[in-house]
Amino acid sequence: MTSFMDTRSHCPITFALDSFGDKWSLIIIRDILFRQKRFFKEFSESEENIASNILSNRLEKLENEGIISKTSDSTNLKRYIYRPTEKCLGLLPMLVEMIKWSLLFDKEAQGPKEILDQIKNNPEKFIQSIRERFIEK
Amino acid sequence: MTSFMDTRSHCPITFALDSFGDKWSLIIIRDILFRQKRFFKEFSESEENIASNILSNRLEKLENEGIISKTSDSTNLKRYIYRPTEKCLGLLPMLVEMIKWSLLFDKEAQGPKEILDQIKNNPEKFIQSIRERFIEK
Repeated sequence: MTSFMDTRSHCPITFALDSFGDKWSLIIIRDILFRQKRFFKEFSESEENIASNILSNRLEKLENEGIISKTSDSTNLKRYIYRPTEKCLGLLPMLVEMIKWSLLFDKEAQGPKEILDQIKNNPEKFIQSIRERFIEK
Repeated sequence: MTSFMDTRSHCPITFALDSFGDKWSLIIIRDILFRQKRFFKEFSESEENIASNILSNRLEKLENEGIISKTSDSTNLKRYIYRPTEKCLGLLPMLVEMIKWSLLFDKEAQGPKEILDQIKNNPEKFIQSIRERFIEK
């Protein structure tokens, strides 16, 4: 599976959009990074109700882009564990800015208060704490 | 016209994706903010070759989201001028982080050297310089 389309240009914004620029990829990345989800079933249970076929497609795409890794679960060989790569962790500063933008412009924005406070007050520390979570593993 | 779909959740990341999370919207926003494009024809000429019907759809969506404004061009009543709103300028920090990510992970990333150097060395100053460009107008 290739990107959604062949390279449209080497503009950095286009590269980013071709890697994860759709309605779903960043929701999966959010679940992996901020909600510590690792299994297909966990991703499928998010409140955005992603369809199974779209979830399969996006997981495969993100794996092909090198943004997530997929390994067999040694405790249950029928399922896979999805984990963030360095390329995924590298998205944290962008995600933090995206969240800050939404908090400014969506009056109904919701999320765990503790996390949102950290993002507003000390984004660098927040990013570091997420990184450490995955380095330990 | 509404968003791509009704609100999926009030997660800040979902809000952002529902506002501009597709393959094209941020390319239009890039053209408005960084390339000073203002007219339909100018957007249609970008190297990504956006189809006219998609361009129309996304301009209308971004206007409905309050991210761009549309006014008649007093020098040519047949055409419209598209401009960034504060909500659009508020995306600059996120776009800067997106560009930095692509520069890290796309070995073939290309762009005006002067701009990419500014983004790497002094992103705050870069953001301010873009903001001032539109405040003056």
